[in-house]
Amino acid sequence: MKKLLLLLPLLLALVSVGNAQSEARHHRIVMQLVSGDTLVHKGLMRQLRNMKEAAPDMELEVVCHGPGMDMLMSDRSIVADKVKEFNDKGIHFLACENTIKERKLDRAQVLPSAGFVNAGIIHIVERQEDGWSYIKAGL
Amino acid sequence: MKKLLLLLPLLLALVSVGNAQSEARHHRIVMQLVSGDTLVHKGLMRQLRNMKEAAPDMELEVVCHGPGMDMLMSDRSIVADKVKEFNDKGIHFLACENTIKERKLDRAQVLPSAGFVNAGIIHIVERQEDGWSYIKAGL
Amino acid sequence: MKKLLLLLPLLLALVSVGNAQSEARHHRIVMQLVSGDTLVHKGLMRQLRNMKEAAPDMELEVVCHGPGMDMLMSDRSIVADKVKEFNDKGIHFLACENTIKERKLDRAQVLPSAGFVNAGIIHIVERQEDGWSYIKAGL
Repeated sequence: MKKLLLLLPLLLALVSVGNAQSEARHHRIVMQLVSGDTLVHKGLMRQLRNMKEAAPDMELEVVCHGPGMDMLMSDRSIVADKVKEFNDKGIHFLACENTIKERKLDRAQVLPSAGFVNAGIIHIVERQEDGWSYIKAGL
Repeated sequence: MKKLLLLLPLLLALVSVGNAQSEARHHRIVMQLVSGDTLVHKGLMRQLRNMKEAAPDMELEVVCHGPGMDMLMSDRSIVADKVKEFNDKGIHFLACENTIKERKLDRAQVLPSAGFVNAGIIHIVERQEDGWSYIKAGL
Repeated sequence: MKKLLLLLPLLLALVSVGNAQSEARHHRIVMQLVSGDTLVHKGLMRQLRNMKEAAPDMELEVVCHGPGMDMLMSDRSIVADKVKEFNDKGIHFLACENTIKERKLDRAQVLPSAGFVNAGIIHIVERQEDGWSYIKAGL
């Protein structure tokens, strides 16, 4: 019996490793937003809320490029408040520098809660190389 | 140690030859359908037929969420027969519970051949974590 | 030999630590084009230019199927010159044989710089299985 008790912590550790693998996985997700459609932007906000509820500890980046950059521009985004709210909860929004140059967007208008990456797609590729899951936003 | 490093390319080559030789790989694929466009639904059915032909033993799940849930609703799907047919051949169609709640869809109208997942995107993420390949349906 | 095999995981671990540390990673990317929208085709050309600039040594395949095959048809592509130009720089464009059959496209009209795959999606799946990153083109 004593020997069993000594082994108990080990057994418990094994059990919790098993649990960790099944129920509470740690998700790392990179989403790509290319669409400038405001319906897509609103739909994305609903998805983020659902995802945050289902997996509160996930790491999530939303990479915006091309027309998708509109979601991060203070002069035209219709979800700027939500972006700030989700950013406060740890979701990262990333603006593509290449798009800013090409579309001659005003850098000063990019939402203050957004970060920057040089090339949106290459960033998404590197995340996948690091084992992150990829989800393309939009219809 | 040096000898080991010299042998490494050989060992890696043996491993990759093994891969190259196995022609009939076992594919595990998770597709995401978000679009409610019936042309997309019809196109998806054509893709499923081609995929089934090219890889009869693949494991395939089609996760439907957002407007994509329309494909699994008996009162509006234009490919209900095909969904049943492919389901009988082992392709799984999964309805997103979050979407059903948000869009206030009638659960009783979901095609009987469909299964359910709580959060569509999180399910897709978990499949990717398990090594499944991800394909986003639609244009 | 047995001892070598036992040490293999350790060696591979060392190699992968090395990779993680090196900044100029080698990217392998498979892009999927399904859209026939010429604005998407033009946007894709801009993306390819940016990607090539950010990662000159990447391996990149653009798999075209469904309406996306229009980009590779000499009688309707509006970016045929660019496709040739990028192909000369090592980017591969792949036409889907299933699509050619289904849409009864004239094989002789497929741009000479394009290659062929039997089933577009299955090819993309196999690339992912080999560790390539997946990017879906379009909005």
